[in-house]
Amino acid sequence: MNRNEQQIMDIDQNEINREDDMNFTITPWEVSGGLDDDNLYIKLIKKFGTQSIDDLLISRIQEITGEIHPLLKQRYFFSHRDLGWIFDKYQHGEKFYLYTGRGPSGMVHLGHILPWIFTKYLQEKFDVKLLFQITDDEKFLYNINLSRGQIKKFTYENILDIIAVGFKPELTKIIIDTIHIKHLYPIALDISRKITFSTAKAAFGFSNNTNIGMIGFPPIQASPCFLPSVLENKPTPVLIPAAIDQDPYWRITRDVAEKLGYYKPAQIHSKFLPSLTMNSKMSSSKPDDAVLTTDEPEVVVKKIKSSLTGGQPTVAIQRELGGNPNKCPVFWYLKYFFDSEKKSNERFYRCTSGNLLCGECKNNLADNSKDFIIEFKKNRERAKNVISDFILDGKSDEVESIQNA
Amino acid sequence: MNRNEQQIMDIDQNEINREDDMNFTITPWEVSGGLDDDNLYIKLIKKFGTQSIDDLLISRIQEITGEIHPLLKQRYFFSHRDLGWIFDKYQHGEKFYLYTGRGPSGMVHLGHILPWIFTKYLQEKFDVKLLFQITDDEKFLYNINLSRGQIKKFTYENILDIIAVGFKPELTKIIIDTIHIKHLYPIALDISRKITFSTAKAAFGFSNNTNIGMIGFPPIQASPCFLPSVLENKPTPVLIPAAIDQDPYWRITRDVAEKLGYYKPAQIHSKFLPSLTMNSKMSSSKPDDAVLTTDEPEVVVKKIKSSLTGGQPTVAIQRELGGNPNKCPVFWYLKYFFDSEKKSNERFYRCTSGNLLCGECKNNLADNSKDFIIEFKKNRERAKNVISDFILDGKSDEVESIQNA
Repeated sequence: MNRNEQQIMDIDQNEINREDDMNFTITPWEVSGGLDDDNLYIKLIKKFGTQSIDDLLISRIQEITGEIHPLLKQRYFFSHRDLGWIFDKYQHGEKFYLYTGRGPSGMVHLGHILPWIFTKYLQEKFDVKLLFQITDDEKFLYNINLSRGQIKKFTYENILDIIAVGFKPELTKIIIDTIHIKHLYPIALDISRKITFSTAKAAFGFSNNTNIGMIGFPPIQASPCFLPSVLENKPTPVLIPAAIDQDPYWRITRDVAEKLGYYKPAQIHSKFLPSLTMNSKMSSSKPDDAVLTTDEPEVVVKKIKSSLTGGQPTVAIQRELGGNPNKCPVFWYLKYFFDSEKKSNERFYRCTSGNLLCGECKNNLADNSKDFIIEFKKNRERAKNVISDFILDGKSDEVESIQNA
Repeated sequence: MNRNEQQIMDIDQNEINREDDMNFTITPWEVSGGLDDDNLYIKLIKKFGTQSIDDLLISRIQEITGEIHPLLKQRYFFSHRDLGWIFDKYQHGEKFYLYTGRGPSGMVHLGHILPWIFTKYLQEKFDVKLLFQITDDEKFLYNINLSRGQIKKFTYENILDIIAVGFKPELTKIIIDTIHIKHLYPIALDISRKITFSTAKAAFGFSNNTNIGMIGFPPIQASPCFLPSVLENKPTPVLIPAAIDQDPYWRITRDVAEKLGYYKPAQIHSKFLPSLTMNSKMSSSKPDDAVLTTDEPEVVVKKIKSSLTGGQPTVAIQRELGGNPNKCPVFWYLKYFFDSEKKSNERFYRCTSGNLLCGECKNNLADNSKDFIIEFKKNRERAKNVISDFILDGKSDEVESIQNA
C-alpha cells in the first residue's frame, strides 16, 4: 500500500458515509463526477457493500501463486466479494472460472486492457478457464446512434485486442452475445423471472424512459456467471475481474444465484483509469482523450504530450509548490503500466517536492507507451489468424461473420 | 351476420364508450370479467382501435378466394387491421406471410385450434408461407410455477397439435423461441431500443412488481412480424390471425415497424372461445373445464355432459321462457365447430322459444366432439414422424431435443 492510499484508508469511514458526499454517478453506462474525489473508492466500497482487499488476502494470494501482481500490490484492484471463498474452493480442489467482458462501443484504449492484463495473470497463476463476453447487444441498446455495422466492426477489432493480451487459447472462450445468445438465453430466463422492475430500477437507475431492451438486458450479462455450472454440469465457482462500475450486475446476480442452485459469483474490482483529460473514465467514444491500441506511434506521442497533468500553471510555481500526482493521469498511467513500485514512489516524491517537471513524465509515458503499442500491434496482427481458436463453439460461419465486419 | 350479432352491431357506439363500462381485463395473459358482456367485442374494437370486419371486406375475400370460411361468415373472426391493404398487396403480386403462435403452458384444447383451422384455410386459399411461434420463454417467465421440463413437454405436445391441424409442411415453419432465439434476437434488439418502459406499461399493464423478463419479452413476440422481410431480403407483408387478447403486441409492433423499414403487420382478430364454465376463455391450465385434443372419447363425453349451459333451472321453466344461447358454451362450440349456419340458426330459435332442451345440445356436441377428436388423434400420431419437416432450420439435434421432452 503506498502512502497516498494509506492516507485514504485512514479516513474515518463515518466521515464519508453521508449521502451528500456521494456526489457522483457510477452505473455500468456512466461514470462521472467522482474521479477527482480522493475518497471515491472508499465511498464506492461503502455504497456497493463490497470489501476492501486487505494485507491478509494479499498474503494468501502470494502463498498460492508465489507472487503478487503489481496491479494488486498497488491496489488498482482494490475491492472484492468472496475472494477468500474462491481461494478456499481452489485449495480444496474446486477450480473456478474467470469471467470478464467488453462492451464493443468503440476501439480499445490502454485503460481497457489493464484489467485484462490482470485477468491473464490470474488465468496463468491458477491455470483456470476464462469466459470473455462481448456485449454487442447492450451497446446496441444503449447507444441509439450506433449502427449494427459499427458495433460489428468494433466487435471484431476488440476481439483482436483481447487475443493480443495473450490469454491461453485452450482455456479461453469469447462469447459474442448476438452470436451465442442460444447459450445465454435459457439461463437469462431463469434469472429474469426472479428480478422485478423495482429491483432493477434500484440497481441500475432505470426510469420510465428507459427502453425495454435495457431493462431486459441485465440477465444476459449475468448469465455467464452460471454458464460454467452448465458447461461443467456441477456448481462451479466463478471469479469476475472487472471495474467496479459493473457492480450492479453482480449484485442482482448474487441475489438470485442460490435460489437457482448456483454459487454466488466472486468479484475483484478495479479502479477506473481516468482519461487524459481526467473528466471521466477513459472513454473510447472520445478518441482524442484516449491512447488507442491502434494509434500510430506519432499519434500516441502527440496525445500524451497534450495530456492534462497534475502540474502547476508555471515552472516557477511547480518548483515552489510541487505538483499533484493524485490528479495526474500521466502519473497514473506510468504507475499502473510502466513504473516499478520503487520508481513510482520516487516519481511521487520528486513531483510533490517540486523536483520533477511534467515534461519529463510525459516523455517517460510517451516513450513507454509507444514501445508498448508497437509490440501490442504485432500481437493484434497475429491474432487475426487464430480467432476461431478463441470463439465459443468456433463454428466457421460464425467466425467468418465476425471477420467480415 | 346472425341476428344476435346484428343486435350487437346496432347498439349506439357512444353508449359503450364510457370507461366504467370497460369492466373487464384483457391482456395477453389474462382474460376475465367480460365474457358474459354482450357488447364485449364491440367494446374491444373501440378500446384497441381496430376495425370491425364489414360486408365489403367479406365480399373481397370471397372474390379472391372463391369462398367465405364459416368462421369469418359467423364473425368468429370479427376485427382486423389493414386487411384490405394485405389484399391490395396480394392482388398486386406481393405475397404475404401468415404469422401466429402458441404459448405452451398446457395441453391444447378445442378453443385453441379454432384459429389454427382458420389459419390453415388462409394458407391454402392464398398459397402463402406461415411462421408459427412457440413462446416457451414467455410461458416460463409468466408462470413461475411451471418448470422448464413441463414447458418442454407442452412444447412437444402442442407441436403435434399444430401439425395435426394440417398445415402444408413446405409452407410452414415452427419457431421455438429458446431454440431459434438467434434468428429472433437481433430483430428484437431493433424493436427493443424503440420502446420505452412507459409505452410497454401502458400496453401490457406492467407494474414495478413485474419481472424484467416479462418487460423485455414483447419484442421477442414482435420479431416474427419482421422475420419474413429478413428471410426474403425485402419488405414483406405479414398477416396475423390470432385472438384479440394478443393485440397489445401488435400495437407496439406497428408503432416501430416503419421506423425500422418494415411494413406494419396486418391482423385479423378472433373472439375467445369460452370454457365450459364460461368463467374465462377456455384455459388449458384448468383441464377439467376444457376438452383437450388428447382426452379419451369417454372423457370428452363426460366433460361436455357436465358443462354449464344457457338453460333454465328446470325443464318446465325452460319450456316456458326458453334458454339463453348467447350465454351457452355448448351452443358456441356447436356453432363454430360443427353446425352449419342454417342449423345453428335453427338451434338458436328452438332454444329461445323453449322447444329445445340442453340434453339434446349436449348430446350433439358430445357426439361431434368425440368423432372429431378420434380423427384428430390419428393426425397427432402421424405428426410424430414429420416434426423435422416443420421446425425452422430442422437441425437434427434440435428436433431430437424437442422429441426427448
